[in-house]
This record gives sequence, structure tokens and C-alpha cells, in this order.
Amino acid sequence: MSDYGKAFTLMRDAAQGQWRDYTRHAFVEGMKDGTLPREAFLHYLRQDYVFLIHFSRAWALAVVKSETHSEMLTAVATVNALVAEEMQLHIGICAAEGISGEELFATEERAENMAYTRFVLEAGYSGDLLDLLAALAPCVMGYGEIGARLASEATSDTYRDWINTYASPDYQAACQAVGELLDAALTRRIGADFEASPRWQRLCRTFRTATELEVNFWQMGLTP
Amino acid sequence: MSDYGKAFTLMRDAAQGQWRDYTRHAFVEGMKDGTLPREAFLHYLRQDYVFLIHFSRAWALAVVKSETHSEMLTAVATVNALVAEEMQLHIGICAAEGISGEELFATEERAENMAYTRFVLEAGYSGDLLDLLAALAPCVMGYGEIGARLASEATSDTYRDWINTYASPDYQAACQAVGELLDAALTRRIGADFEASPRWQRLCRTFRTATELEVNFWQMGLTP
Amino acid sequence: MSDYGKAFTLMRDAAQGQWRDYTRHAFVEGMKDGTLPREAFLHYLRQDYVFLIHFSRAWALAVVKSETHSEMLTAVATVNALVAEEMQLHIGICAAEGISGEELFATEERAENMAYTRFVLEAGYSGDLLDLLAALAPCVMGYGEIGARLASEATSDTYRDWINTYASPDYQAACQAVGELLDAALTRRIGADFEASPRWQRLCRTFRTATELEVNFWQMGLTP
Amino acid sequence: MSDYGKAFTLMRDAAQGQWRDYTRHAFVEGMKDGTLPREAFLHYLRQDYVFLIHFSRAWALAVVKSETHSEMLTAVATVNALVAEEMQLHIGICAAEGISGEELFATEERAENMAYTRFVLEAGYSGDLLDLLAALAPCVMGYGEIGARLASEATSDTYRDWINTYASPDYQAACQAVGELLDAALTRRIGADFEASPRWQRLCRTFRTATELEVNFWQMGLTP
Repeated sequence: MSDYGKAFTLMRDAAQGQWRDYTRHAFVEGMKDGTLPREAFLHYLRQDYVFLIHFSRAWALAVVKSETHSEMLTAVATVNALVAEEMQLHIGICAAEGISGEELFATEERAENMAYTRFVLEAGYSGDLLDLLAALAPCVMGYGEIGARLASEATSDTYRDWINTYASPDYQAACQAVGELLDAALTRRIGADFEASPRWQRLCRTFRTATELEVNFWQMGLTP
Repeated sequence: MSDYGKAFTLMRDAAQGQWRDYTRHAFVEGMKDGTLPREAFLHYLRQDYVFLIHFSRAWALAVVKSETHSEMLTAVATVNALVAEEMQLHIGICAAEGISGEELFATEERAENMAYTRFVLEAGYSGDLLDLLAALAPCVMGYGEIGARLASEATSDTYRDWINTYASPDYQAACQAVGELLDAALTRRIGADFEASPRWQRLCRTFRTATELEVNFWQMGLTP
Repeated sequence: MSDYGKAFTLMRDAAQGQWRDYTRHAFVEGMKDGTLPREAFLHYLRQDYVFLIHFSRAWALAVVKSETHSEMLTAVATVNALVAEEMQLHIGICAAEGISGEELFATEERAENMAYTRFVLEAGYSGDLLDLLAALAPCVMGYGEIGARLASEATSDTYRDWINTYASPDYQAACQAVGELLDAALTRRIGADFEASPRWQRLCRTFRTATELEVNFWQMGLTP
Repeated sequence: MSDYGKAFTLMRDAAQGQWRDYTRHAFVEGMKDGTLPREAFLHYLRQDYVFLIHFSRAWALAVVKSETHSEMLTAVATVNALVAEEMQLHIGICAAEGISGEELFATEERAENMAYTRFVLEAGYSGDLLDLLAALAPCVMGYGEIGARLASEATSDTYRDWINTYASPDYQAACQAVGELLDAALTRRIGADFEASPRWQRLCRTFRTATELEVNFWQMGLTP
């Protein structure tokens, strides 16, 4: 398993069952061995495009909620990576499959998709940067972990582009940066001993809920 | 069908199918003829208690987003009715069934429940009062309409307390007040001809989405 | 000096100079001995009416940012007291002086006034309940302290109505309730030893800044 | 005067007196003929650095409040320009004067500075993208107009670096982009005839208030 910092590791361990359901979901294993139906993948990709719009908004909210220049810089870099690069990947793959940008943008948001992004945004609006980061982390780091694992375990090239995106040094470095942001933001607000704070259990619950919403998202991917 | 103002009637008509699925849901019909299993009702009631916590927070957000004293007063009155009265109904019924206030408060939030309240709150945080009211209206007015209909159509007394709450003159007056608030807020921000504005379709979509989330909420009630 | 709880006492002590400038301002002393010109008082009262609109919105935001039912109840009670009672005092005094409700509502917001309420609201939107309460406390408790002191020290009856409002058992009880809310919210989020947390200094700074904005508000009162 | 789009021109005309006070302020004229004391300029620059932190947060909020991909892209580009470039200018000039980055970051925020950014952020949090853009526009476009004018009128090279930054094709293009964003956002939400909407006067008032806060900011610059 990947090492993206102290807080992430603790949060992941506190959501062990859900984390496994998420990172080892049938959808993921189908990308690993190439058995995932193309239709399901494209359906997922279109929903994920809509997801990324709201997920980018949530990362922009992390800029608004930053208290230091360093927090701002990591959050701004993430918004850029999402809006400029990751969304571009989706547009590219979809275009190659004959799905136009216009069609992509007009994708009707599924309930499982909406439930996830609204949870993240609301956590951020109602709380401070910590509440928001706890809700953002499972997506960022889970994809990093899945990408890294599938890069070495994949037995098919069908979904190699997708896997390479998240296994890439760039994406792994982004996960490291977010892990450092999380550790530093916790230390700044709670102290080095943050896992002893009464807030910690609630932050872990936010992380766990977001992980469950990731499971539902993969599940949605299997049911176009 | 109830008359709670111009905008509400237009929004309801624009969401006809979903509105019917919501206000004529099997759960509702089961309260009408008394065939709804008690277990389902109590399960619903506990989830609805958690719902009301977040729904009250959303109405408090309507106070924050108000631009006139009159908007503030209606929103404050609604928060009070929710926190002081409606939540009390739930505590009372549950207590009579042997469910303590502590147990009620500890209810684990179901995904269908969370999806709904976070959608409403996020609509309010990201938009202005109109976006928020469009998301709040289906719950307030739908319950008013269901209560009024069941008060005359119910063939069983099993769920009479619940029905009477929403059929009561007090609750119906609250629906009228929210309908007037919606009409006035639209007129203030867009003009008397608000349904010709480009925003109108998006407000109707918000109303429709919230109505769909109500359908899911009843459905959750049937599956304890 | 009044005792409104542990956190408040610590925050007040950390802003000693500003607190004195605020609670012993020439405007306050002028109400004590009756030398405050009526024109200045009415000017202040009109600005304070506009202030209360936004201050009520900020307390409504405290409902939105609450994490427990008990936090919600105190915040809702405060919104009610502000919207239903304190604003009514202003309307009453102004009416007696021939200033109509319409005129009152049309008061042009002064820069010193706007600077204060926007600071409080932004602190609440960007942070969690603690950041918001630290910004709200100086106004609530400062008026309580001033009212209590002037009730025993006033040498003139000219401003007795105003003094009595804030010296009243009701208002003093509200200060106690807000003090308890602050202590409980800190303990819930940081722990019993909250003043050892890295956030504490920033919360004290927020309290101090709000206190400085109170000084500016009194000063504005002296310059109609 | 610069042409940055239809809505901006209308808003500027509706705030004529304030706009003149802002763009022809003694501080500005002192940069034009080089008579502005260096101490005042450096004082302004340090405050402006703190301003840019919060102004960038406000532009990030514009990303959160965007409804289309195109709105997001312009807002993201502006956040980047602010965080990566404009703040760099300040760091560079200050470094050349012996003010370290650490010292710069530790600048104590003046009341006039805080009043401005909190007003902008609160307008954005409480309203929709239009309310936020109306509060953001005076700073962006006013600096564009000042830069363009001083580039041709300046009789001294003392403040040439500052002037060139805002007169540069890059900055002027950013003003054009924000002007187009404003026009498009208004048309999307209100319609092509947006100046006939009841919201228009309130948006113009927000623009005017922000312009007044700019006047106060220059004034602060003159009083280190």
C-alpha cells in the first residue's frame, strides 16, 4: 500500500473494510484484467467528467479555506491539475470513442455521483479546511493507490491509459503533496499529536463516508 | 391539489411525474390505509429526525441569505417551527414507542438521507436564496399536500397523528408563508415575469431533483 | 467584570487594552452620565439596527455550523432574541423619536459598520463554529458587561432604557448561554485543555479584531 | 477610458464620482509624476500583498460558484495569475528593497485592507457568482485602467515597474477576459437585457461600494 503521509495512513486504517471495498472493487479488478465492458467504462468516464467539475470546485474551496500561502499553493496546483489535465484525459478518451465534448458536458448526473460531490462540498462549506481535506482525500489517494497497484498487476492493456494516468510520477507526486498538506494542516490547527484530539474521530468518519461514496460510484459504473 | 402560490404551482407542474411519484408513494398510501408496517414507519421517523437536523440548518442558511427583513422573518419562523415543534413530534412518537431521545439522536444516517440534505445545503451555499428555496420547497409543500389529502382520504387511524400534524392549520399556514416567500424572493431578484428568465429552468431543475430525492427517501423508509 | 465562562475570560484577558477601549469608550461613559448628545445616540441606534440585521444573519450561520442539537438550540434562541426582541427595542426607541420603521430600514450603512459585520460573517463562512463564535462573542458579552456596570454606575436616567435592556436578567442569561456554548464547542472540538491548542492564539486574535471593530463602531457613533 | 465590456462600462458609469476618486487618487497621481514617497509605496505594497492573499481566495470562490466550464476556466486562470504572478511582483520589488518574504508575509493587516477583502468574500459567500463578480471587478479593471493611462501619461520612471505590470498586454487581456466573464455570467443568469432586471441596481451598488473601499485603500497607502 502506498505511503502518502501519517494522517492518510491512520485514516485509511480506520476505514479498512470500506477502503478495501473501494480500492478492490469489481470495477477496478475489471480494469486490471481487461474484462470490464467498454460500455461500463465509458459510462463511468462520462459520470467522472461531471464528478471532476464539482471535485474541482471543492478543491477551489480548499483555496478559499486556506490559512497559509503554502496551503493555497498546493490547493491551487490541484485545481489546475484537475481542470487542465485530468479533465483533458477524459475529453481525449471520449473523443477517441466518438463522444463529443458537448455530449460529454451534457451528461446527466447520476444520483450516486451527485450524492458524493455534494457531500464533499457541504463538508467544506460547513467546516474548515480539515473537514474538507478529510472528504477530498479518499478520491485523490485511492486513485493513486489503485493506479500504482494496477501498473504492476494489470494483465491486460485495455485500460492501460487510465492506469498510467494515475500510476504516473506526476499523479503520485500530487498524492504526496496532498498527504503533506493534510499532515501540515492538521498540525497547524490541532498540534503534532492530532490523533488524540476529539475532532480526529469525526474527521475519520468523514473520510470513511467519502470512501463509501466511492464504492457507490464504482458500483454505478457497473450499471450504465 | 394545494395552492401554495404561483411559483410553487409552476415548479410542481414542471416536475409532474416526479411529484406524483413523491406524493403518491407506496409509503404514503400505506399511511393512508394503515397498511404501512410499524417497523417501516419508525425507521422512517428516526431517519426523518436526522433529516430535520440538517433541514433546519438549511433553513437557517436561508436566514443568512436573506436580503430583506421580511425574508428573514419567514425563514426564522420556519427554523423555529422545525427545531421547536416538528422535531418534538418525532421525539414524542418515538418516546411512546420506547425509543429514547438519546437513541434517536444516535441514529445512523442512511445514504439516501445524506444525499438529500447535502444537496439542499450545497445548493444554498453555492447559490443565492432562490437556489436554496427551490431545493427546500418540495419537502415543505409536499408534506403539506400529502397531509391535506390524507386528512380527507385516510381509511385508518393508525397514522392519524402524523397526518394531523401536516394537515393542521399551522402547518398549512407555514406552507402558504413559504409559498409567498418564494414568490416575493423571485419577484425581488428577477421581476414579476420570473418564469421568462434564463434562471427559471435551472430553478425548476433544482426543485425536480429535490423531489426525486424525496422519492428515494420514502423508498428508504420501506427498507429498514 | 462579568463572568461569562472560562474561554470568554481568557479571550478578554488576551485583548485587555482593546477590551478596555471598547467597554469604557467615551460613547459608553456618555450614556453613563447622560452627556451623550441625543443626536449621536440616535445615529448610533440607526446604525445598530442595520448592524443587527447582519449580526442576526451571522447567528443564523452559527445554526448552520452547529454539530449538536444543543449547539443548534442556543444559536436558534439567540437569533430569535435578536430578530424578535433586540431589533424591536430599536424600532420602539426610534418610533418614539419620530423615526419611522421605513426610515430606519433605509439607513445607509456606514463603513465602520460594514467592516465589522462582514468580518464576522466571513470568519464564520471560512472557518468552523469556533471561528464564528470568537468573532461573535465581543459584541454579545461586551454589551452584557457594559449594561451590568452602567446599571449600577449610571448617574443619569437619560439612557436608562438602553442600559436596562442589556443589564436585564434575560440579556445576562443570554450572555451566560453564549459563554457555555463557547466553552462546550471548544471542548468538543479541541478538548478540555483548549488554550494549549495551536488554534487558540488565532481564535484570540479573531476575538481581539472584533473588539477593535467595536471600538470603531462606538467612535462612529460619536460622528453622526 | 478602457473598454472592458458592456456590464463593466455601465457599472462604472453608475459609480462615476467614486470611480474618479479611485482611479485619479492622489496616490495614483503620485506614481504618475514620481512624487509619491517611497515609504508610502512600500507600505502600500506590503498591504497589497496581504490583500492579494484574500483577493485570490475570493477568485477561488468564483471557481466554486461557477456554473459552466467556461466560467471555471476564466476564474482558475485569474487565481493563477494572482497567486503565481502578481504576488511574485510584490515579493520581487520588496526583496529589492530589503524586505524579506517572511517579513512581507507577517505584515499586519490594516483595517482599511481587511474591510475591503471581507466585503468581497462575504458578497461572494452570501450571493451567487454575479454578486461576487460585481465586488471583484473594480479592483481588476480599475488597475487595468490606471495602468493603461499612466503608461502614456507618466512623467517619471520611479514607478515604471508597477505601471508596466498593469499596462502590460497580459494584464489588459485579463481585464478583457473578466469583462467577458461578467457579461456572459449576467446574460446566462438574467438575460441579454440584464440592466432592466431588479437585481441590476443592487449589483451596481456592490460595485460602487467596492470602488469606495478602493479609495480607502489608496488613502491608507498615503498614511504608513
